[in-house]
Amino acid sequence: MTTLIFKPGKVEGKFSKNTSLMDAAQELDVDIEGLCGGKGICGRCKVIIEDGYEYILPLTDSEEDLLSGGEIDKNYRLSCLAEVGDEGFIQVRVPSGSLRKGRIFLTEGEEVKFEKNPSVKKYYLKVSISSLKDSKGDYEILKDLLKREYGFNCNSIDYLVQKELPSLLRRKEGEKKDNWDINVTLWDEEEIISVNPGRNEDIFGIAFDVGTTTLAGYLMDLRTGETRAVSSSLNPQIEFGEDLMTRINYLIESERGRKKMHKKVIGGINNIIDNLIEEAGVKRREIYEIVLVGNTAMHHFFWEIDPVYLLRSPFIPARQASVKVKAREVGVNINPSGLVYWLPVSGGWIGADNVAVMLATGIYNNSENSLVIDIGTNGEVAFGNKEKAYVTSAAAGPALEGAQIKHGMRAQEGSIEKMEIDPEDLEPIYQTIGDKPPVGICGSGIIDAVAEMLSSGIIRRNGSFDEEKKGKNDRIRRLEGGLLEYVIAWSDECSMDANITITQQDVREIQKAKGAIQAASRVLMQELGTRKVDQVLLAGAFGNYLDKESAMIIGLYPECNLDKVKSIGNAAGTGAKLSIMSKEKKREAEKIPELVEFFEIAGTEKFRKNFMESMYLPHKNPELYPRVERLIG
Amino acid sequence: MTTLIFKPGKVEGKFSKNTSLMDAAQELDVDIEGLCGGKGICGRCKVIIEDGYEYILPLTDSEEDLLSGGEIDKNYRLSCLAEVGDEGFIQVRVPSGSLRKGRIFLTEGEEVKFEKNPSVKKYYLKVSISSLKDSKGDYEILKDLLKREYGFNCNSIDYLVQKELPSLLRRKEGEKKDNWDINVTLWDEEEIISVNPGRNEDIFGIAFDVGTTTLAGYLMDLRTGETRAVSSSLNPQIEFGEDLMTRINYLIESERGRKKMHKKVIGGINNIIDNLIEEAGVKRREIYEIVLVGNTAMHHFFWEIDPVYLLRSPFIPARQASVKVKAREVGVNINPSGLVYWLPVSGGWIGADNVAVMLATGIYNNSENSLVIDIGTNGEVAFGNKEKAYVTSAAAGPALEGAQIKHGMRAQEGSIEKMEIDPEDLEPIYQTIGDKPPVGICGSGIIDAVAEMLSSGIIRRNGSFDEEKKGKNDRIRRLEGGLLEYVIAWSDECSMDANITITQQDVREIQKAKGAIQAASRVLMQELGTRKVDQVLLAGAFGNYLDKESAMIIGLYPECNLDKVKSIGNAAGTGAKLSIMSKEKKREAEKIPELVEFFEIAGTEKFRKNFMESMYLPHKNPELYPRVERLIG
Repeated sequence: MTTLIFKPGKVEGKFSKNTSLMDAAQELDVDIEGLCGGKGICGRCKVIIEDGYEYILPLTDSEEDLLSGGEIDKNYRLSCLAEVGDEGFIQVRVPSGSLRKGRIFLTEGEEVKFEKNPSVKKYYLKVSISSLKDSKGDYEILKDLLKREYGFNCNSIDYLVQKELPSLLRRKEGEKKDNWDINVTLWDEEEIISVNPGRNEDIFGIAFDVGTTTLAGYLMDLRTGETRAVSSSLNPQIEFGEDLMTRINYLIESERGRKKMHKKVIGGINNIIDNLIEEAGVKRREIYEIVLVGNTAMHHFFWEIDPVYLLRSPFIPARQASVKVKAREVGVNINPSGLVYWLPVSGGWIGADNVAVMLATGIYNNSENSLVIDIGTNGEVAFGNKEKAYVTSAAAGPALEGAQIKHGMRAQEGSIEKMEIDPEDLEPIYQTIGDKPPVGICGSGIIDAVAEMLSSGIIRRNGSFDEEKKGKNDRIRRLEGGLLEYVIAWSDECSMDANITITQQDVREIQKAKGAIQAASRVLMQELGTRKVDQVLLAGAFGNYLDKESAMIIGLYPECNLDKVKSIGNAAGTGAKLSIMSKEKKREAEKIPELVEFFEIAGTEKFRKNFMESMYLPHKNPELYPRVERLIG
Repeated sequence: MTTLIFKPGKVEGKFSKNTSLMDAAQELDVDIEGLCGGKGICGRCKVIIEDGYEYILPLTDSEEDLLSGGEIDKNYRLSCLAEVGDEGFIQVRVPSGSLRKGRIFLTEGEEVKFEKNPSVKKYYLKVSISSLKDSKGDYEILKDLLKREYGFNCNSIDYLVQKELPSLLRRKEGEKKDNWDINVTLWDEEEIISVNPGRNEDIFGIAFDVGTTTLAGYLMDLRTGETRAVSSSLNPQIEFGEDLMTRINYLIESERGRKKMHKKVIGGINNIIDNLIEEAGVKRREIYEIVLVGNTAMHHFFWEIDPVYLLRSPFIPARQASVKVKAREVGVNINPSGLVYWLPVSGGWIGADNVAVMLATGIYNNSENSLVIDIGTNGEVAFGNKEKAYVTSAAAGPALEGAQIKHGMRAQEGSIEKMEIDPEDLEPIYQTIGDKPPVGICGSGIIDAVAEMLSSGIIRRNGSFDEEKKGKNDRIRRLEGGLLEYVIAWSDECSMDANITITQQDVREIQKAKGAIQAASRVLMQELGTRKVDQVLLAGAFGNYLDKESAMIIGLYPECNLDKVKSIGNAAGTGAKLSIMSKEKKREAEKIPELVEFFEIAGTEKFRKNFMESMYLPHKNPELYPRVERLIG
């Protein structure tokens, strides 16, 4: 018996002579990929022998054929063909490209595992067609070979590929014309979207998060599941307005506005594609798919669909199901036979970005109750479990990200990101990004400030400044016009002329924003008839920097053990990545609009009542936040 | 009981009160179309009440809705809603648009019946969507309505239509925005390819016969099955060579030759489309499909596929299956969301044109033995029955159409189309097209000439002029160089300077051409092990003018009762028409490459031997043509 250790993971077992490495791996639950089912055709189950090469039976002819010289020198073998030989000790490393499972890391070290099963895959074929006697067509011969070697029925071929098929099949130099030695790229094991001479395993896709403000692209290696490059930029549509309403109005009033809006965003997407190609050094024609997520207005802009009816009751989007269109039809600069795929839309107010967040969190598969808060320009809140889950839109506005706050700013160098207030003398301590002199205050700093002002009694539970505290520290001052403010940094500490303050108005803005989110959460919890929240998931960059306790003190989410609050980063982007890596995830996404039901709260009495109560810090009803109440006395 | 008579066909029956006209028709085997299954939604089952309107129950609301004012004035009713009333006598005319079956006439009064079931159909929907409560997308609502009203699952929508969908659905003026009143055009009951406001039943397609020399287009009314206009032109590729070899060589040697060749034929097709639109006065956007047939080289030219490998053994076409591509991808000027469909190809030598001929004849469904001879630049011969059928290519050359014959010409004014020779004095009588003075001799005239020269003994069974006859009439003369010829018309009868003659060389050309066809037929008959030919079908314009007895005398087909010889005209065009009118015919065509197996004769010993014997007039073996042999003595 020979001892085999598989890395990474270091699983170990003993195997008898002539056991293939793939069989051994299978027995040890190491998932090695094999498109051809262990027939020694696809060459995808490569492993590296790190120790004990001499205890493996010699290289087979097929391995010599399918492995490059360099790979052979580095002790690569195909696990379906390499067999255990004499008694000894062998250590095998399975490279990530050969593993059937991939993993994507979320912000807090959480990971999402997925079956690597992208819609686009490459299959290798090497065959002498002179042996084929019948008078079928090239396309039919190719179909039959794919059936014979890989066992599936492809039923179509992209027109551009069909045009070039005769020479693509026979192009490889130095080979006899009737020896085909090709890679065939398939979509969903059904449509041939590329044929290339020779062996080349490169296959890429790009996951896009198409935000109102920011476009972000992730170049994915579809073989390994790795993110090869990331690029982002401002959404160039900003030229037509920062917010969606302004853009839609521009579109309606401007001649050919719909086309302009469409071209702008396609241009932005193409720029990011160019950047990703340059950064990762990959070939444009090897990018076969892009998957996009974004809100429903961006969806309509991207696809050049009239968004006017999104603004009118009953707010019907032009389409709910996913969209799949050839890259050349949309003008996206990847392989022209490749596909552009946009995840399904839940409704006029809940877009594919939220569907992607749901996909990344999978709350509809979880028996515990999850509350997902996605804070962006348009906030979304979801709550539920595998029995029932709801999602709703909470028009929180951008205050929590620093907008509409007097000294608010995006998280940049010099912005105050953390702060505390001494409850005795009401003096602040703050921390800026990059330890630079302060220039403003970003989202996480504002939430800290409001929470600390509440804890130290500068403001009351209803958000008003406590006039009595005014005498205790001259940082509490009255502005012209009568409103009070609290000075966090005097102008001489700042790299600017003014003091950095939090005004009564700022506190009101935060109250409204968090109130909208809290009220939305509470309506959904009431609808589900439970106050039990087993985990809180914060989506969006915002969550990464947030002080969880401060957020709880102001009542952004229910009082709970803070270990249950997790920041999951750009979960929309993660959902897009999962969808590009796995057909099953695409199918799952298709069901999300039903699994996570849209619950309309806008204009309802229930929401209005909850909103009024949620404007209090942390909430009008002290019983909901007993610990916080003790803390703020 | 009320007596109902349905016209055309004049079937009659007695029915009780409240029987719908559609039910009555069904009982009498009159096939009235009804897309919605008698629910009074589609408005397709219109009939005209020619007599006894008063014995029908009054017009229903739905009929008032679905019929135009003009139609109501002309006593139109919807047969699914109009019910028999009081006792009386009613005469109903079913217009061809309301009949489920269509018919296409072949040349000799033969007709092909077909179920009208085109891939493209229009469905009418009138609905108030304000009653729909859920927050789905426009596309999903449309899908659900089509399911609810017509019972099928459409699963996709053309991208161009999806883009415009919100306004297309709501565009009709003077209507409330949330009242949809639309026609939806579907491909195969699956894909939405058009949405139009209001009720408009127009729906057209064009069947094309893409010949090496001639392009012919037939504008079909997809609702009625009628041919609304016909247009043909020279194939503009002739600029690059008259025959396919020359064109393929030009393509190989010329820069961007493949694109040029493609653009030429697409340009020709688009010209014909323009002509058809003008002639019939239809709208371009109402043309939703074109179906094309043609030989395999034309197939490759049209689709811009490299045809080089068609010339090299093993003569593999790039594709055998049918091709279906969006009109906008190919540059064909019909509705850009419409489809371009090319019937399947049998092989490198047997194209979709032959598949269409087979479809029109249906020999693979017939228990009797059929011999199909398609004479064109490249002749094809098929023989068989529903048990087994073969097709092969017979390189007959263009002699039978008048080319390569000294005074040969296409059938035009002044060409000799019929002739006889008096067996006593060897004097000819001839008839020209349009009774004009002769300018040459066309295909049917040449076959008459050779047959008459044989019957009258001017030439022998081996095709040589009989020297002994030379003295009997000075029309039999020796040319410079020693060859003999027979003068059909002296120059003073002609509107030209020369005599019109048939030379020894001309006779040889005819022998070779008919020899190739006869040999091909005989090889296939030997392969099937039978000499029994139950019918002979002559495809191509050529067959229309041919004297059937003359053709039998020279041995173009086996000796038989001439009633069994039928000219079926442009059967390739008929096959294309059938395919555009019926999905079932498209599916049937897909099976023809298997049902009618290609049998390779080129270069075989069997063909060579048969060809030598078939050069004789009518055949080397007199036992095969006993009546002809008695006739020619």
